[in-house]
Amino acid sequence: MLEQMKERVWRANLQLKESGLVVLTWGNVSEIDRATGYIVIKPSGVDYGAMKPEDMVVVDGNGQVVEGKLRPSSDLATHLEIYKAFPNVGGITHTHSRWATVFAQAGAAIPPLGTTHADTFCGAVPVTRKLTAEEIAGAYEKETGTVIVEAFCALDPMAVPGVLVHSHGPFTWGKDAAHAVENAVILEEVAMMAWHTLRMAPQSALQQELLDKHYSRKHGKNAYYGQKG
Amino acid sequence: MLEQMKERVWRANLQLKESGLVVLTWGNVSEIDRATGYIVIKPSGVDYGAMKPEDMVVVDGNGQVVEGKLRPSSDLATHLEIYKAFPNVGGITHTHSRWATVFAQAGAAIPPLGTTHADTFCGAVPVTRKLTAEEIAGAYEKETGTVIVEAFCALDPMAVPGVLVHSHGPFTWGKDAAHAVENAVILEEVAMMAWHTLRMAPQSALQQELLDKHYSRKHGKNAYYGQKG
Amino acid sequence: MLEQMKERVWRANLQLKESGLVVLTWGNVSEIDRATGYIVIKPSGVDYGAMKPEDMVVVDGNGQVVEGKLRPSSDLATHLEIYKAFPNVGGITHTHSRWATVFAQAGAAIPPLGTTHADTFCGAVPVTRKLTAEEIAGAYEKETGTVIVEAFCALDPMAVPGVLVHSHGPFTWGKDAAHAVENAVILEEVAMMAWHTLRMAPQSALQQELLDKHYSRKHGKNAYYGQKG
Amino acid sequence: MLEQMKERVWRANLQLKESGLVVLTWGNVSEIDRATGYIVIKPSGVDYGAMKPEDMVVVDGNGQVVEGKLRPSSDLATHLEIYKAFPNVGGITHTHSRWATVFAQAGAAIPPLGTTHADTFCGAVPVTRKLTAEEIAGAYEKETGTVIVEAFCALDPMAVPGVLVHSHGPFTWGKDAAHAVENAVILEEVAMMAWHTLRMAPQSALQQELLDKHYSRKHGKNAYYGQKG
Repeated sequence: MLEQMKERVWRANLQLKESGLVVLTWGNVSEIDRATGYIVIKPSGVDYGAMKPEDMVVVDGNGQVVEGKLRPSSDLATHLEIYKAFPNVGGITHTHSRWATVFAQAGAAIPPLGTTHADTFCGAVPVTRKLTAEEIAGAYEKETGTVIVEAFCALDPMAVPGVLVHSHGPFTWGKDAAHAVENAVILEEVAMMAWHTLRMAPQSALQQELLDKHYSRKHGKNAYYGQKG
Repeated sequence: MLEQMKERVWRANLQLKESGLVVLTWGNVSEIDRATGYIVIKPSGVDYGAMKPEDMVVVDGNGQVVEGKLRPSSDLATHLEIYKAFPNVGGITHTHSRWATVFAQAGAAIPPLGTTHADTFCGAVPVTRKLTAEEIAGAYEKETGTVIVEAFCALDPMAVPGVLVHSHGPFTWGKDAAHAVENAVILEEVAMMAWHTLRMAPQSALQQELLDKHYSRKHGKNAYYGQKG
Repeated sequence: MLEQMKERVWRANLQLKESGLVVLTWGNVSEIDRATGYIVIKPSGVDYGAMKPEDMVVVDGNGQVVEGKLRPSSDLATHLEIYKAFPNVGGITHTHSRWATVFAQAGAAIPPLGTTHADTFCGAVPVTRKLTAEEIAGAYEKETGTVIVEAFCALDPMAVPGVLVHSHGPFTWGKDAAHAVENAVILEEVAMMAWHTLRMAPQSALQQELLDKHYSRKHGKNAYYGQKG
Repeated sequence: MLEQMKERVWRANLQLKESGLVVLTWGNVSEIDRATGYIVIKPSGVDYGAMKPEDMVVVDGNGQVVEGKLRPSSDLATHLEIYKAFPNVGGITHTHSRWATVFAQAGAAIPPLGTTHADTFCGAVPVTRKLTAEEIAGAYEKETGTVIVEAFCALDPMAVPGVLVHSHGPFTWGKDAAHAVENAVILEEVAMMAWHTLRMAPQSALQQELLDKHYSRKHGKNAYYGQKG
């Protein structure tokens, strides 16, 4: 079932590891098949080196395992909330990458400070509110998804394809698993540069015109970066 | 004697080197056989590339060499004190990894600032007191173990599997050599992220509920992270 | 057409990637043939691993494609302005390398603080002014070239072979593509060290005599660094 | 002539490159034969990948080339001054490694802040005074050696085997070329950790007793670190 998708998700998980964003097993990638609502996700706590495409777990929209011998990632319920709320998201990545996690731990959004940021994120990468004691004690991973969705009440998730979960770390997404991983890589670069820019020039800010220009140069109907088609 | 254990300790030492935590020969791993009380440890000052399983040194609980042609690590007496005081510890690692050593040099504990920390350390990673001039002039490496044990007078060493020795560097431990190394890797990530979080947001702190949630998600009888068995 | 130059530009782009300065496709190198005025440049948004010498795009001095199936780098118009204004420049590199981009985002020039800087840059690496809203809305990439040229109104571009575009990132150049890449590598080292020097000693400055000595030791008719010829 | 020494110096230069301390050709290693006074040193500005043992240059105590087709490193005159003043030095290394150079650019000595430092440097790694305009205009590389020697007027160069040249970078030494390179690696680790320790705890200082203990544990007649003989 969904063999090509399992292959893609497996490959995206390996790319995540190779990107240097993941220590031990601290990262996971999933992809959704919008036709069936089925989601393919990395198994929980499995070593990347030993992982095969057939180890990927297929779950339905309620998180019930449809195929696979292993438990899905413990972050599955967070992925599910994101897929439910953001209908154009096709793939999701979660990491504890160093620089993005520093901002998450500080409870700070990453403001746009340069065109590297603007090429992918059309505005600040938001940070969620803290979860309440009740939310933590309850359906914790689901509630993590809830506060992510809350943070986008007035934001387009396809124009800002990532978020920092307070005291935790980043989630990024895209039209498929590969783009979700690419956005995780970009977020880490952006976070590293923002951290150091703010230390030397705390009042730094990107001109709104430059933010718009760079984002639209790469995205939308008038994009002219890259090759046609 | 203890051939499998020597193989495991040798492999754990190599993994420590491959993890990037060790420069030159600045690291060592040991494991204890609780049935006999024998300990297998890396030889002192030997290059990782040239080291073989049979070079591992077997010592008894008093540090006397039982088998092996080479001198044991000069930190052996510290390992012995830890094994004596903490009966559930099966393996120990010592490094001078950069970020953990920075905290050790600053004489500062690493406070829990995020879930990465909470997944492994159920509270701050403590820093020992300074040794007195008498302790330094006396059985220095043994006294290093003594101040480590002191730092845990009110702490469960299995719930906080690591410590920073003041002005020196980190020791981590676990149920065996491999887990001790894994905890050394985690401590370094946690230290790097804590350093930068504290520079940008000095008042950062993790909610107690989130600390408990993440620690118990991975450890103890209700753990649900990873695969069964 | 210009097969050797395409080979050189292709190789310089790969060297840029291997230097670690480039994430994803965020970098480009070009070279000019001053006899014909033709420029060879990397295609836009193409993966370095898949790129071949014949994928390099040949354009004329107005940016019109003379040969090649792919679109040229979206930064082409900036390269053109630099080639037009600086007649001794033979190759140009653009990256979003971390430390140089941090200075660009902070809107700060990189002052000379040591001999590493002085060996290549005979003075501060300047930062451009911000573009106006009109310039951003207009011929944006061309205007980026215009503000670079403005920044050198009183500077010799061969004595300071690089610049930081405000809120964007570095451009470097040299007598050919390979030297432009080498200067990108040097700029990144210099930026990393300047950032940390200024944090610990904000008043640091290099003696003018030492700046002149090191620059002239490597450049100009009395240079004595390296091998003859 | 001195074929084994050329092989050793060549190998030490490669190890320096592999250690990650050197960008492009910014590093050199030499060794002295105290019987003849001849010195073997890396040629100037030659790529490490293309370098062969026979490319090493043999010079006499006045810096005159005795054997070799290439020019010696432009830093040769500095090496000569160190060999003349410090009779127990057998090998010298110079780099522009990032963290040590940051201290050099800030004009700051590296104070002992932990046992990693004390294991190799029995006290602060000093920084030279600035050269005068006359010294820079005169025999610059020789004068660089002069200020290094000045900085050790009351220090034992074998107990503190390295120095920071103001606004320039580190020189380290040892009993042979391999140990000079090893000390360059150690200095870089120590500098990185000192930089970050001082940012978080500016008043940090190592106890004198611990400095003495760690240094004597590894060096001198009562050393017990490593293997015998």
